Amino acid sequence: MLENTGRTELSSLGEFGLIKHLTQFIEIKNESTIKGIGDDAAVIDYKNKQIVISTDMLVEGVHFDLAYMPLKHLGFKSVSVNLSDIYAMNATPKQITVSLAISNRFSVEAMEELYSGLMMACRKHNVDIVGGDTTTSKSGLVISITAIGEADKEDIVYRNTAKEGDLLCVTGDLGAAYVGLQLLEREKKIFMESPGVQPDLEGNDYILERQLKPEARKDIPVLLKKLEVKPTAMIDISDGLSSEILHICTQSELGCNVYEEKIPIDPSTYNMAREFNLDPTICALSGGEDYELLFTIDSADFPKIKANPDITVIGHLTHAKEGVNLITKAGTSVTLTAQGWDSLLKK
Amino acid sequence: MLENTGRTELSSLGEFGLIKHLTQFIEIKNESTIKGIGDDAAVIDYKNKQIVISTDMLVEGVHFDLAYMPLKHLGFKSVSVNLSDIYAMNATPKQITVSLAISNRFSVEAMEELYSGLMMACRKHNVDIVGGDTTTSKSGLVISITAIGEADKEDIVYRNTAKEGDLLCVTGDLGAAYVGLQLLEREKKIFMESPGVQPDLEGNDYILERQLKPEARKDIPVLLKKLEVKPTAMIDISDGLSSEILHICTQSELGCNVYEEKIPIDPSTYNMAREFNLDPTICALSGGEDYELLFTIDSADFPKIKANPDITVIGHLTHAKEGVNLITKAGTSVTLTAQGWDSLLKK
Repeated sequence: MLENTGRTELSSLGEFGLIKHLTQFIEIKNESTIKGIGDDAAVIDYKNKQIVISTDMLVEGVHFDLAYMPLKHLGFKSVSVNLSDIYAMNATPKQITVSLAISNRFSVEAMEELYSGLMMACRKHNVDIVGGDTTTSKSGLVISITAIGEADKEDIVYRNTAKEGDLLCVTGDLGAAYVGLQLLEREKKIFMESPGVQPDLEGNDYILERQLKPEARKDIPVLLKKLEVKPTAMIDISDGLSSEILHICTQSELGCNVYEEKIPIDPSTYNMAREFNLDPTICALSGGEDYELLFTIDSADFPKIKANPDITVIGHLTHAKEGVNLITKAGTSVTLTAQGWDSLLKK
Repeated sequence: MLENTGRTELSSLGEFGLIKHLTQFIEIKNESTIKGIGDDAAVIDYKNKQIVISTDMLVEGVHFDLAYMPLKHLGFKSVSVNLSDIYAMNATPKQITVSLAISNRFSVEAMEELYSGLMMACRKHNVDIVGGDTTTSKSGLVISITAIGEADKEDIVYRNTAKEGDLLCVTGDLGAAYVGLQLLEREKKIFMESPGVQPDLEGNDYILERQLKPEARKDIPVLLKKLEVKPTAMIDISDGLSSEILHICTQSELGCNVYEEKIPIDPSTYNMAREFNLDPTICALSGGEDYELLFTIDSADFPKIKANPDITVIGHLTHAKEGVNLITKAGTSVTLTAQGWDSLLKK
């Protein structure tokens, strides 16, 4: 349908044409998707399940820099970020809607790249694209995705239901997305100053992938079910560990002790943080964009999770009056704040 | 909480502070809203009803001009535009999520205005704000709203189910939003050229309100139920009557004859169109933003709707091979295109 000239202007297709072109290969995979794209609204049927809805907006120049973020990765990441919220409810994502505001500096081919990333993530998570809106923007690219999922009422896990004495657990490892971003920013700066120099990104696949192509933890709700553990509270780590711990503690009206030495940090994250003269712990606490899950469990469930390499116990919940504290490797107790970065640097 | 200085910078509250401030007066009204703002996702329970989801994005400089669009009206309109899609499925909206990208040229007070408009529309339609995202933008304001509604499976009306011989009906009147926009554009231009001159908008309340503060047709699904009429197909009129007729015809694989003399146009729309040397029929066909409902009914249902002042029969569905035609007041048949404006001007 499109000529093979390398760049097709968005205007050559028009809004309806562009939507049709981008969405032509969408196949509906879920029985719950009664009607996808093509009507005033999508129609979904979850029978007797509860519905879980989350939405995120990504703005060019604020959440991503196309100088080092390939559009395909951006599409993938936009979906991951949203699905992560659904998994954090201990629910299963089933559908998304995708709204795009696009300036005419983008070509049809660029939007195909973005869409291929969106669809790759959808395939991975078995999610249907059921609707959206595509419009013009005066300047940058804006992506707004709403994710819809389902869960049995009794499986849903909120943030405000942790209990005193519960163990605080985290999946995977933290801080990598942040040091990955530092590396990309450094190489971009070098490239801007000396355009001939090739970026030196070799050997840093893990931290780069964590920044550019984060995976939402689809496996964790499944794993927890298998282990017969229902978390008492859960949240995903998008703004950094400190911020998310504070959300659980504030909303559950509890305090917490978190042990610095327990915070899982990958060796490659550790080394790159050191290269940038950054404290790896602070990268984990305040870096953000890890899209791991933070949850609390009844301490009686500890034997069920202790052997699992994907889950690390990093602390425990206390009475609110004890506050939210980081117990450092040196054994000192530091009050944790959402601006962990600043306050810890000041210590 | 905020000082009364007239302008509070967004940065003084921060992202979480701003969300908390703007959403503090939100009250949940629907039993189906299990959990609103404050977790990773909202939780909804529709029991055995089907779920209807629609999303729209409004971009400053593309969909609205703050030179003449008060923020409160913009908030109201953003919600109306989305709910209109839910009503067009013959469903009832129950929840929305609201995502905003805001540049720092807006103050907290400006966002309060926008939110008061959003909440006014929500109250009017008995809809809960259950989530969203608030982020920074590099330049303009972007509003992305997702509306979620419910319906019994057997009540949902799609676009692709019209039948040959059905009557084509439209609610309210058309073209007013478009001539209202022309008036606002003209007065803005005069104001830009001579800032001392007060805009001359008097006596044009109806067309201005249709542009600035459109109402989604909440009453129509209720009315149709009362009249015991289930439309065979339905769509809302956002892009202009021609475009929506073509959607129904294309998706239902039918043709259509639409009678120019039947198209409902308010006298104030008619007069203002004439003042701008515009053909009122073309304003109705291609103007857009009317947010009325266009639907088809079985001709046997005609007696049930014929006395209703809110519904006008404007044509009937034919075999696909007869095409989609406008029968003009002069009795000529003109092929209707989505670009009705251009093609009709050329005739």
